[in-house]
Amino acid sequence: MEFSSKLLQRAVNEMSQLPGIGKRTALRLVLHMLRQPKEQTMMLSEALQAMRNDVKFCGSCHNISDKNLCEICANPNRNESIICIVEDIKDVMAIENTSSFKGLYHVLGGKISPMDGIGPHDLNIESLVNKIKEGKVKELIFALSSTMEGDTTNFYIYKQIQEYQIFTSTIARGIAVGDELEYADEITLGRSIVNRIPFENSLKL
Amino acid sequence: MEFSSKLLQRAVNEMSQLPGIGKRTALRLVLHMLRQPKEQTMMLSEALQAMRNDVKFCGSCHNISDKNLCEICANPNRNESIICIVEDIKDVMAIENTSSFKGLYHVLGGKISPMDGIGPHDLNIESLVNKIKEGKVKELIFALSSTMEGDTTNFYIYKQIQEYQIFTSTIARGIAVGDELEYADEITLGRSIVNRIPFENSLKL
Repeated sequence: MEFSSKLLQRAVNEMSQLPGIGKRTALRLVLHMLRQPKEQTMMLSEALQAMRNDVKFCGSCHNISDKNLCEICANPNRNESIICIVEDIKDVMAIENTSSFKGLYHVLGGKISPMDGIGPHDLNIESLVNKIKEGKVKELIFALSSTMEGDTTNFYIYKQIQEYQIFTSTIARGIAVGDELEYADEITLGRSIVNRIPFENSLKL
Repeated sequence: MEFSSKLLQRAVNEMSQLPGIGKRTALRLVLHMLRQPKEQTMMLSEALQAMRNDVKFCGSCHNISDKNLCEICANPNRNESIICIVEDIKDVMAIENTSSFKGLYHVLGGKISPMDGIGPHDLNIESLVNKIKEGKVKELIFALSSTMEGDTTNFYIYKQIQEYQIFTSTIARGIAVGDELEYADEITLGRSIVNRIPFENSLKL
């Protein structure tokens, strides 16, 4: 791509470093900025700088936070005896949106994936084990995606904490609410039958 | 969407102002930046600021430029008697990539589109007419998209310049090179037959 302006070229090149954004999309975005008031681009770039420079990770659960301890960990109304293990902060946001969980989280920052060169020591597993050693945690909920990597990570953590004898659970897998049975995949449908629940329990929600 | 950090929230909100980028995509991009070295986000935001603050529009053709006259207009090897009218700078880049045009451009900055509230006076038409008044231009090539708005804009400009009696042409519409005839739409196929060219001409390219 030939650019008539070096400034434009630089902006497009930088934008196209972002995942899922190619040169053409980057050019479209940058030209859009040129049509908008100057303030809008300034606000965007300042927000990105401030975010990148000042955002912190919670010292306890590794969630993104503006302080050293995130709002969830700092909230005294949260039940600190239940910890939900998730892959990244998007999962924390997704679970928080359901308002169905009042415990704390632990953000691993990924899954064990030898193919991508990610081993257990690249994840926040040690701090989780240390937290459990303190003895306050009673239940650990595994809420990773149900893939090979997710299962491997679950099992690795499970092995690490076995000596502390705390209750471990995993989120329910089954047919999504509103889904038609005939379109469900076999494994999910099979699991949903094996792990069936008392009918009265389904009335509570 | 609930955010655990105000800085993150602000960055996501600003990113999602861009066209085609929703909150989820913005979050994905911003989290990607957090995983990358700090310098990368700084370079992006500085490139955007520099571009928005310092980029200029060519005083002659309205193309984006770093100087008051763009490289194409300033190039003495370009034929200033032929002007190709295009909608925006993406079209200039597309035509320049073909290396088949050695004249100058004129960027309108849009098409006449009453539905979107864009009239002739919102486009760079006056400066085009002034350029033609000077008498140096011999041919005007219409290279707008072949839509209702494009055709309207072509015709509006055509009417404006009729008194100066210069040669006007429009880019050829037809079956794209490599395309199968059976999948071509009727209008394009019909036009390609009506506007057929001597076979010898097709051998030259």
